[in-house]
Amino acid sequence: MASQAQVLYDFSAEPGNNELSVREGETITITNQNIGGGWIEARNSRGEVGLVPEDYVELGKTPAAGGSTAPLDLTFFDSQAPAPASTTQSQTSNGNDPWAVFDTNASGGFSNNWAAQPEGTETGKNSNNAWGSTSYGHPQAYQGPGVEDDEWDDEWDERKSSGGYAEGDMGEGGAMNRGGVHGSSMKIALNKFPGFSKSGPELYLLSKQTAKGNKLSIYRGEVGPVWEYPEIQLDCVVADPKKGSKMYGLKSYIEYQVTPNTTNKPVNHRYKHFDWLYERLLEKFGSAIPIPCLPDKQVTGRFEEEFIKMRMERLQGWMTRMCRHPVVSSSEVFQLFLTYKDEKDWKTGKRKAEKDETVGVMIFSTIEPEGVPDLEIHEVEQKCEQFSRFTKAMDDGVKDLLTVGNEHWKRCTGPLPKEYQRIGKAFQNLSSVFTSSGYEGEATLTDALTAAGKTYEEIAQMVAEQPRKDLHFLMETNNEYKGLLGCFPDTIGVHKAAIEKVKEADKLVAASKITSAEKVTMGKRASSMSYALQAEMNHFHSNRIYDYNRVMQQYLEEQVKFYETIAEKLRHAHSQFTTM
Amino acid sequence: MASQAQVLYDFSAEPGNNELSVREGETITITNQNIGGGWIEARNSRGEVGLVPEDYVELGKTPAAGGSTAPLDLTFFDSQAPAPASTTQSQTSNGNDPWAVFDTNASGGFSNNWAAQPEGTETGKNSNNAWGSTSYGHPQAYQGPGVEDDEWDDEWDERKSSGGYAEGDMGEGGAMNRGGVHGSSMKIALNKFPGFSKSGPELYLLSKQTAKGNKLSIYRGEVGPVWEYPEIQLDCVVADPKKGSKMYGLKSYIEYQVTPNTTNKPVNHRYKHFDWLYERLLEKFGSAIPIPCLPDKQVTGRFEEEFIKMRMERLQGWMTRMCRHPVVSSSEVFQLFLTYKDEKDWKTGKRKAEKDETVGVMIFSTIEPEGVPDLEIHEVEQKCEQFSRFTKAMDDGVKDLLTVGNEHWKRCTGPLPKEYQRIGKAFQNLSSVFTSSGYEGEATLTDALTAAGKTYEEIAQMVAEQPRKDLHFLMETNNEYKGLLGCFPDTIGVHKAAIEKVKEADKLVAASKITSAEKVTMGKRASSMSYALQAEMNHFHSNRIYDYNRVMQQYLEEQVKFYETIAEKLRHAHSQFTTM
Repeated sequence: MASQAQVLYDFSAEPGNNELSVREGETITITNQNIGGGWIEARNSRGEVGLVPEDYVELGKTPAAGGSTAPLDLTFFDSQAPAPASTTQSQTSNGNDPWAVFDTNASGGFSNNWAAQPEGTETGKNSNNAWGSTSYGHPQAYQGPGVEDDEWDDEWDERKSSGGYAEGDMGEGGAMNRGGVHGSSMKIALNKFPGFSKSGPELYLLSKQTAKGNKLSIYRGEVGPVWEYPEIQLDCVVADPKKGSKMYGLKSYIEYQVTPNTTNKPVNHRYKHFDWLYERLLEKFGSAIPIPCLPDKQVTGRFEEEFIKMRMERLQGWMTRMCRHPVVSSSEVFQLFLTYKDEKDWKTGKRKAEKDETVGVMIFSTIEPEGVPDLEIHEVEQKCEQFSRFTKAMDDGVKDLLTVGNEHWKRCTGPLPKEYQRIGKAFQNLSSVFTSSGYEGEATLTDALTAAGKTYEEIAQMVAEQPRKDLHFLMETNNEYKGLLGCFPDTIGVHKAAIEKVKEADKLVAASKITSAEKVTMGKRASSMSYALQAEMNHFHSNRIYDYNRVMQQYLEEQVKFYETIAEKLRHAHSQFTTM
Repeated sequence: MASQAQVLYDFSAEPGNNELSVREGETITITNQNIGGGWIEARNSRGEVGLVPEDYVELGKTPAAGGSTAPLDLTFFDSQAPAPASTTQSQTSNGNDPWAVFDTNASGGFSNNWAAQPEGTETGKNSNNAWGSTSYGHPQAYQGPGVEDDEWDDEWDERKSSGGYAEGDMGEGGAMNRGGVHGSSMKIALNKFPGFSKSGPELYLLSKQTAKGNKLSIYRGEVGPVWEYPEIQLDCVVADPKKGSKMYGLKSYIEYQVTPNTTNKPVNHRYKHFDWLYERLLEKFGSAIPIPCLPDKQVTGRFEEEFIKMRMERLQGWMTRMCRHPVVSSSEVFQLFLTYKDEKDWKTGKRKAEKDETVGVMIFSTIEPEGVPDLEIHEVEQKCEQFSRFTKAMDDGVKDLLTVGNEHWKRCTGPLPKEYQRIGKAFQNLSSVFTSSGYEGEATLTDALTAAGKTYEEIAQMVAEQPRKDLHFLMETNNEYKGLLGCFPDTIGVHKAAIEKVKEADKLVAASKITSAEKVTMGKRASSMSYALQAEMNHFHSNRIYDYNRVMQQYLEEQVKFYETIAEKLRHAHSQFTTM
């Protein structure tokens, strides 16, 4: 049964796992194709035998036929191409972001002890997609199939023992080197297209490939270019988190029920499936559409009720945002996630999604602006600059609000209620002194004074609990926007790089590097990219207006309730004193 | 015209003032009796000539006839007598009292910068009458007549150039050594009764003197022994502070209009007149009735509107409390202060008051308990202990409330409004970023967001101003009570000392120091003292209940208004967002 296979991507063996390190282009001999779980056993030219991810090799292929895209010689770009990401690298996100404290604390059971939390504690993952990240090329982070790697996600990664998936044959897995998801996956993405050392926009600008996959239409709307929106907006409910376990209860995980409004039929997903979806969406749409990070997977307190609730809430927020996006929500991979019928369906769809080649900048090849004229490059540039300025300014504004909100949160849950409590105690204390006076006719005053004291203790409690009722949602929404805005530098970076290429076109024609026809094509394609960016910005703006209207309304509504309740309590306390 | 005079009390000359130091018992020769302003010129036996206070000498009196009270030989008490004040000395008041900060700050224009105020800053005068003060004997602080001493009260002491009093012949003055009011005045008080080295309660317990002045009746009321209350309660309004000046405007002062409800005719008084009244009341009633200190005379910002308002408010509070007291309000000196007809009337009354001999413990000789049985000494002691415990406990409670209130004040005027302001700014900042989006249909959101931001700035302002509206009155009342309670250790000390004396009576009889009849008298008098204390405590309790009812009502009412206004503002801000 032994057959030859061509290695498509580099793979580094995990020590002690019977794995075999292989390099792209290497020819190996398959020694056992029936290992299961997405693995095959293979032998290299030195006679070493071990497991290799099934998806990393191609049976019977020759090295020359390796890439599926046209082998354009674009190496001349290498020396000239700016590294778009470096233009935004000066601003690193999250490093000193107080919201990170919020995150960390929230995962610890959402406790009240802000003060005890060291400032600047940071959760690792959030910074991946931030301003200054170098991953603008958008990675194919999902590297291998079906690896049962206990390390990267601990319990969260364990295959569940019950539910929609049968043990052992799911073919699902996770990124192998979790710590460096984007770094390593970037390598993969580049390796996928031999001859390129950068996955820059030139890939699309000069592509001779015909677009694969669904077309993404852009129309002229009232506010400018807009995506094509579905008639019924997709929505889903993430609910009913259930604890599952495997290995006789030694390992456990949480499974969420996701119910889309289209089928109203719930599907089960663990965090790692959300993560898989995120990686797929990032890979496919990340150059054109900001795909915000998933909520952090936090380690501490993971089974505490509060943490599960919090994660669910954030997964819900993330899913809602994805559902609302016309391009994302109508994509095959997203629909698969929400509506897979059975395990086989899921497995098939999953493999298909992982093999999708219309990823990275190639997504622009599916863009079809309708009824709009091609844009001049200076118009493209102007729009791009405008969006860049706006998203940067909004990012600052959002971070400012988060900082203030976090400080207010600390005060409301820390010193302020303590003070109200002390005021309450002081009144009650005075009341009990008065009671000891031996003077008759004191009862009305002492009762009223005690009641007033208790009212202030109640107010203390209310003050401490209030941030979870109002500030929480304001913070969550702004935190979500911080995540979204953190994607823009990468997205905008792709556009800026494309603009640079188009501006160089004349020189390239003169140097006979490209033809005049190719130059025209580049301009047209940059125009398409700009329409995509404009449509996306308009989508962003429309959502932003909706979200901020909603969050401000909810915040103010809760604030009104809060102050009204306090006034009401105090009015009652007031009424107990004698009117003289 | 030269005549001999006997020196009644020690007097130390102020250097450079042409004054002459004299000692009690010394015979001096009057060289000029027409100096005016309460001074005479005299020559001592060494031929030195200088000014001596008129009241410090007696023309033609012999040393033997010096004191006007019976020259009892009570020196046997000296070695045995406990120092009553020392029993309460363990607790020093005000030392670390944050309210002192409040005071200091308030005088500085009642500004908002609490945070900048060092903790523990203390104003000197408040501690005079506090727990642990050794001045339980109650001093005759007003030492000399008509001294135009620019030092002790600076501008406040200057004789006004216009108004009810003519320049130069008023015969009014102030304590000479202001810094040690009670220390130096104690000396005087003792000197007044030759043969005593302590002004203890024995003076009254064994007095052969018949009571002088109005009788103070005590009745059996519903709550126990009570003072005789007037049919119409005296009240007065302190208002209309006016700035006056003298010495061609170099020195200035404030004059207040005091209008009693009995005559409805205003009289003018400067702070120093209030101070004179305080000293008179303290001297006369201090052994039986807590006479709270006047509000501090503070130096900084004295002509700022806020300071004048504040002092007036506190003088009003002090006068109201004095008016409410049946004994104080009906006293001749208090009536004089409120209802003097003209300058001559005032001057005559003033001199008379200063010569009042029914002062200190002798006030008890005017007490007339009616329809109540004499109390056994253990009953007297029990009552005294009870009041001691209560006033101590209340003092602690009041101070606790003041500490908490002060901290709350700081927070409300410091960090809290700053935070609301920052929240407001963050909203407005986001709004202005949104305005720059270039997206159409944004106006409703940005307008609403700006309005919400402004609302939080308004709330910041409200929060910062609120303590003056509610906490202020609560603090003022408690501060007033702190002052009142600070008088009790002295008052109670007198009673405790009397109890000790009565308990020693048997031994004294055995040692033939006193007669059996005198022992019986002592017991009866201790009983009268106890009735006075009980009447006073009942007065205190009744006022306390009234005051705390009122202050809590006002506090809560203002708090309700505050929270309702905020809720209303936020409701309005809420309404400006689009309902979706």
